[in-house]
Amino acid sequence: MNDPLPTGATIGILGGGQLGRMLCVAASRLGLKTHIFEPGAQPPAGDVAHSVTTASYDDAGALKAFANSVDVITYEFENIPTSALDVLETLKPIRPGREALRISQDRLTEKSFLESLGLKVAPYADIPDMAALDAAMATIGAASILKTRRFGYDGKGQARIMDVSEAADAFASMAGAPAVLEGFVDFSFEISVIAARSAGGDVTCFDPGQNVHRDGILHTTTVPAKLSASLRTDAVLIAANILNALDYIGVLGVELFVTPTGLIVNEIAPRVHNSGHWTQNGCVVDQFEQHIRAVAGWALGDGKRHSDVEMENLIGDDMNRVPELATTPNVALHLYGKAEVKPGRKMGHINRIIHP
Amino acid sequence: MNDPLPTGATIGILGGGQLGRMLCVAASRLGLKTHIFEPGAQPPAGDVAHSVTTASYDDAGALKAFANSVDVITYEFENIPTSALDVLETLKPIRPGREALRISQDRLTEKSFLESLGLKVAPYADIPDMAALDAAMATIGAASILKTRRFGYDGKGQARIMDVSEAADAFASMAGAPAVLEGFVDFSFEISVIAARSAGGDVTCFDPGQNVHRDGILHTTTVPAKLSASLRTDAVLIAANILNALDYIGVLGVELFVTPTGLIVNEIAPRVHNSGHWTQNGCVVDQFEQHIRAVAGWALGDGKRHSDVEMENLIGDDMNRVPELATTPNVALHLYGKAEVKPGRKMGHINRIIHP
Repeated sequence: MNDPLPTGATIGILGGGQLGRMLCVAASRLGLKTHIFEPGAQPPAGDVAHSVTTASYDDAGALKAFANSVDVITYEFENIPTSALDVLETLKPIRPGREALRISQDRLTEKSFLESLGLKVAPYADIPDMAALDAAMATIGAASILKTRRFGYDGKGQARIMDVSEAADAFASMAGAPAVLEGFVDFSFEISVIAARSAGGDVTCFDPGQNVHRDGILHTTTVPAKLSASLRTDAVLIAANILNALDYIGVLGVELFVTPTGLIVNEIAPRVHNSGHWTQNGCVVDQFEQHIRAVAGWALGDGKRHSDVEMENLIGDDMNRVPELATTPNVALHLYGKAEVKPGRKMGHINRIIHP
Repeated sequence: MNDPLPTGATIGILGGGQLGRMLCVAASRLGLKTHIFEPGAQPPAGDVAHSVTTASYDDAGALKAFANSVDVITYEFENIPTSALDVLETLKPIRPGREALRISQDRLTEKSFLESLGLKVAPYADIPDMAALDAAMATIGAASILKTRRFGYDGKGQARIMDVSEAADAFASMAGAPAVLEGFVDFSFEISVIAARSAGGDVTCFDPGQNVHRDGILHTTTVPAKLSASLRTDAVLIAANILNALDYIGVLGVELFVTPTGLIVNEIAPRVHNSGHWTQNGCVVDQFEQHIRAVAGWALGDGKRHSDVEMENLIGDDMNRVPELATTPNVALHLYGKAEVKPGRKMGHINRIIHP
């Protein structure tokens, strides 16, 4: 697939959550259709997709029919089963490519990949068993965090360790899953760079945003981040380094710790990212459109920031604030259409625009 | 229907063109679903609607099923058959209401309604027959424009008359349809006010935009319009006058001629309007979201203009310019997903943002 997709072509999207939903909206602005593949019923993205396939990732027939009905395949989450990718890739291009998925699906692989590019990461160790955990704590320090190598998001599959005495409980909480121990990093704050690379190899980055988490879930992202010009440049170069090393096509989120001795890569996500939602109201072309452009073989667009923005996630009962937020000046509301409110569930977000 | 529609509720939209398409996108931002009713196959709005009913406006069964599947009914065009409205209104609220449709469906009724509010309109006359046309030209002047009373848009159903000798041909071109003669107005330029009124009676107007037409079709809308402060106020008061007189719920487009002696109302459209597309990139809440908020019983949002914008329609072969426009800084692209390019067909638009 070398030519840009024309009006009326279809982007296949694996995953039907809010990221898929906002990708569908962006695709519509470019005259493109979308087809969602999602095992769960009534996915948020289904409200705005042209088509929805409700099927399991081990349903090879459904995967084949899906691939045959679309022009290119992308995804809104990284934990797609390898067997499903094996079926899909024989039929249609998958963008971003499988190497990005292979690396980002496993925290250990991801960290060694980042190190191989000369990038700094937090001290870490492979933890196949309790003995390895004891040994790692001796090197990295007792204050650390044990994480499953795979399937972690929004603080899930993680156990903080403040003291050696907590190690056994933390290891038990992994329930036998392969894990990695990460040392604490003494950082001032966290930033994200949302970067995009086109099929032709062009790279562009949105302005870095400054993240605040609550209970392991992103709470706010504010742009501009409070960064020196040189750190801002470093952040962009790091993201470009990663994109080029992966021969990447699409949008990638890079989370970085800002420390007194420079930037440390926390993690990467091979997809549009919650910390890039501010671009919807801060830029002419947002992260969702930039991703669709890249996977559709289009040139990237103008991602220059025109306004200062604070993005705030609406989690669970934050939905009670919607009537007030809906009438607050300079607040853009983005709800995900999830009927059921649950604690910790991402229900929507707002972008508070701070015009210069 | 008095309470604001909650997340997951469904807006029924009559008509599946680009206006419906952009209404669907706006509804999704508020967590609402959309259901399109459209006789034509593969409507542009179908790409982003939750559901689509493909049926004729005289299919009472389909209309009933549609109405029963939604919470409120709105529309993207004014020429909805009365018989269809009769079926729908017994089942669900229609917003804006039928009085707005009755008036805007007929140029003659519309003009006398506007006059009844004390508003200025172009000189006009009812033209049931050729004798009436001769008589009207004696009063209004030979230079005039003959229009069908109903079903006109984008310059269709219109015949310009420059001289008495052209009257018979113009009358014949109406093909027996009831017509109205309008005198030419000596105007400096045309503006639009996109105004909204909530179910609770609150009114808000977007900044007036200045329109340029080509071949009877809107070419560009530029904000801010070159208006004095007093004319700007007049424009907003005229729109509010119309909204309140109709007990209107939703967005209304008002086209006004700017003349040396003040504003003259050209026409009104009881729906989102092409000349309001600039709001997508010039305001936090655009005309589509404002309309959805009103028909869903929500409070209106912040429609303050934060940027100067020039909206330009992409008509027919303008689609050849898309690759260049897609990479032009400060240009936001909005395509409608219409696969077939035809001369005079609206294929998309761009918003060129001029940041202060």
